[in-house]
Amino acid sequence: MATYLADNKQRFLDELFDLIRIPSVSADSKFKDDVRRAAEFVRDRLGDAGLDGAEVIETPGHPIVYAQKIVDPAKPTVLVYGHYDVQPADPYELWDTPPFEPTIRNERIYARGACDDKGQFYMHIKALEAMLATGNLPCNVKVMIEGEEEVGSDHLGDFVAANREKLAADVILISDTSIISNDVPSVESGLRGLSYVEVEVVGPNRDLHSGVYGGGVDNPVNVLCQMIASLKDADGRITIPGFYDTVVDLTDDERAELAKAPFDLDEYKRDLGIGDVFGEAGYSTNERTSIRPTLDVNGIWGGYIGEGAKTVLPSKASAKISMRLVPNQTPDEITTLFTKHFESIAPASVTVKVKPHHGGFPYVTPTDSIEFEAASRAFEEAWGKKPIPTRGGGSIPIVALFERELGIKSILMGFGLDADALHSPNESYGLFNFYKGIETIPFFYKHYTALKG
Amino acid sequence: MATYLADNKQRFLDELFDLIRIPSVSADSKFKDDVRRAAEFVRDRLGDAGLDGAEVIETPGHPIVYAQKIVDPAKPTVLVYGHYDVQPADPYELWDTPPFEPTIRNERIYARGACDDKGQFYMHIKALEAMLATGNLPCNVKVMIEGEEEVGSDHLGDFVAANREKLAADVILISDTSIISNDVPSVESGLRGLSYVEVEVVGPNRDLHSGVYGGGVDNPVNVLCQMIASLKDADGRITIPGFYDTVVDLTDDERAELAKAPFDLDEYKRDLGIGDVFGEAGYSTNERTSIRPTLDVNGIWGGYIGEGAKTVLPSKASAKISMRLVPNQTPDEITTLFTKHFESIAPASVTVKVKPHHGGFPYVTPTDSIEFEAASRAFEEAWGKKPIPTRGGGSIPIVALFERELGIKSILMGFGLDADALHSPNESYGLFNFYKGIETIPFFYKHYTALKG
Repeated sequence: MATYLADNKQRFLDELFDLIRIPSVSADSKFKDDVRRAAEFVRDRLGDAGLDGAEVIETPGHPIVYAQKIVDPAKPTVLVYGHYDVQPADPYELWDTPPFEPTIRNERIYARGACDDKGQFYMHIKALEAMLATGNLPCNVKVMIEGEEEVGSDHLGDFVAANREKLAADVILISDTSIISNDVPSVESGLRGLSYVEVEVVGPNRDLHSGVYGGGVDNPVNVLCQMIASLKDADGRITIPGFYDTVVDLTDDERAELAKAPFDLDEYKRDLGIGDVFGEAGYSTNERTSIRPTLDVNGIWGGYIGEGAKTVLPSKASAKISMRLVPNQTPDEITTLFTKHFESIAPASVTVKVKPHHGGFPYVTPTDSIEFEAASRAFEEAWGKKPIPTRGGGSIPIVALFERELGIKSILMGFGLDADALHSPNESYGLFNFYKGIETIPFFYKHYTALKG
Repeated sequence: MATYLADNKQRFLDELFDLIRIPSVSADSKFKDDVRRAAEFVRDRLGDAGLDGAEVIETPGHPIVYAQKIVDPAKPTVLVYGHYDVQPADPYELWDTPPFEPTIRNERIYARGACDDKGQFYMHIKALEAMLATGNLPCNVKVMIEGEEEVGSDHLGDFVAANREKLAADVILISDTSIISNDVPSVESGLRGLSYVEVEVVGPNRDLHSGVYGGGVDNPVNVLCQMIASLKDADGRITIPGFYDTVVDLTDDERAELAKAPFDLDEYKRDLGIGDVFGEAGYSTNERTSIRPTLDVNGIWGGYIGEGAKTVLPSKASAKISMRLVPNQTPDEITTLFTKHFESIAPASVTVKVKPHHGGFPYVTPTDSIEFEAASRAFEEAWGKKPIPTRGGGSIPIVALFERELGIKSILMGFGLDADALHSPNESYGLFNFYKGIETIPFFYKHYTALKG
């Protein structure tokens, strides 16, 4: 296996570069054809790797790529999930090199999708190729790579529900998360959920002259700011009534376990260029970004935002607001609580509208499960140390969906780093991480098959 | 005079329409040539009206138009001020008819600049034409029409300071304000001042993934909202330390006098489509929009404001904020107080920048002055009733500048209506107001000359 990997290193990277070069931006309809091209590329590479029935399956949105290798119906089946679509690369002017022309600097691949998720899921295709080429695939594998993760996986739920038999498996394996560092491997044992809304506050029925009406008419921008400000208190706690009701607090032991993850606050602040962190009182930064729910304004706009000054009292103001959820909060519950509360705190001088966007359930894989143990042993073999269990801050809504629809747990065995700058300009993925992941993944198959007995 | 006005009604309107059609938007450099064309148009019409020495005078910015008629050095001199530049018309899609194609509906002229300020200052040129044509100009007149009022009159101060002799006069006459209604004429005896700033709150040195960092890193948009919300208390009072220190409260008698202006709160709310008004506790709506200082956010932006959802924790957020001032607040004083306070309330997790824009001093003309009396008598003759003295909400910075540089008081004898929707889409000016203003203005000259003795 090691020889095979060494012999094909360059080709693995060249293929990944070809995949990255296809600007498969799912959020923007002008890239629709590129998204399809990426799907076809993935299908072809799956066939080349030795899997069977590689196909591009239509949906009402972007297509899903599927392939499988059934070695023995009596063996367990691993379902690999990933996404070939990427975030928009805007603003382009902040990239040091073009986002869709992968460039290597400091042993890292710089490009949109280098990590999220192309670099990560492609490791699985190469690992499967290596296992098949060397006769080392101990169980069955199904591969499902979708094209709408960055826009909410709107059609995946229907696809999964309509293909339960096709997708039947014992565990889902996903690489779309990160390790603590290249010296401190980790496996995510949980993910936060997501509730996302767009709000609009409307005051007067038209923009007004701020001299003629200022002081007498409530300004919707000021009102929106007041309403948003009121959503958290001075301790960083969210004030929406009932918001924390379904949160299952971690036990002291669980918190202690997570706290073993190395974390350098000064380095964290230095990397982000901030004077200080801030979050919910009583919790560490790691806890605030993983096991506690949050509320963030992702975008805000209203009034005159062009060059110079305009003395307008704007008619309306809007914001996009999202909340990360933890077990057992659910997206509909939180979206409803938010909506009711936001509408209730609006003063009589304005009207408000709340529009829900896609959400996602939070998720946890118990660390005493077979799947988690298999991942742990894979890291021990490939890295020489047990991975630390971590709770991820981000959401992968499909994970909870899989459990609900297919009854299967997921293992979040990713190889990224926080420095990869997902969703930002100059996203990157380490060459070390790409190759180490390809080396580690076969050990998961080995140990999972052994543990399932 | 009445015959002359009747005979030339249509031509007056046609000329105003031609002036309106020139999109003299001072704030946007792509209209630079149009601004100049408007200046030349005004110069030509001043010459046609019978004034002498009509000229377009260069400045480092947009030009100033000047003309005069000296009938007798022993007589008083009235300096007419107006501005030929207009506000931007954005957003164009909210106009019912194109903003620079004047259209009459319901006896009103709809166009950008129909009222502010073209319709208003052009009445003066036509009134002067009528007075000269019928041998009825009793005193000297100087006319100064600038092209940067909507962007802060940046170069007017230097022009005035460098041309004190040229502009020497006894009173400045300005039509850029409104009357209470066509049945209730009024003259503005005061104007609010202006302090305008742009603020930027910067958190992390790049946009972040809101899942990975949300909850642990202070979100600059949330912080900006909190800071803005804190600038006013629940009673609508501005919390900046020292903000009200130099405010001269009106006496109970003065408040009672202003309170005589008719005001229908239900109609006000109906016209604006709002459920309720809101402002500083202890003051009526009229008082809040005229004799009390204010703070309004004119624009706010940060993060992702495009289509759909993006789970970003933005690097920064910005807002344009302006404050209306009353005597004796001054723009530099208030801008400084704002800046110091805003910087002081920024948490350690962000850095803030405050950039000042142009400001303007508040202004008052005593109602027992000769100039005010002359305006009062002009209305009595032309309208059959004395005008009510009002305090305007808006600012005309040049008014205080004139007093400081030239030692001259201004009379704000405007003929607009609140319904004109200045600075908004579908700005308009009543035909009644245009013609009634041309009829009223000569009576000001008559009475002012008589009162000056």
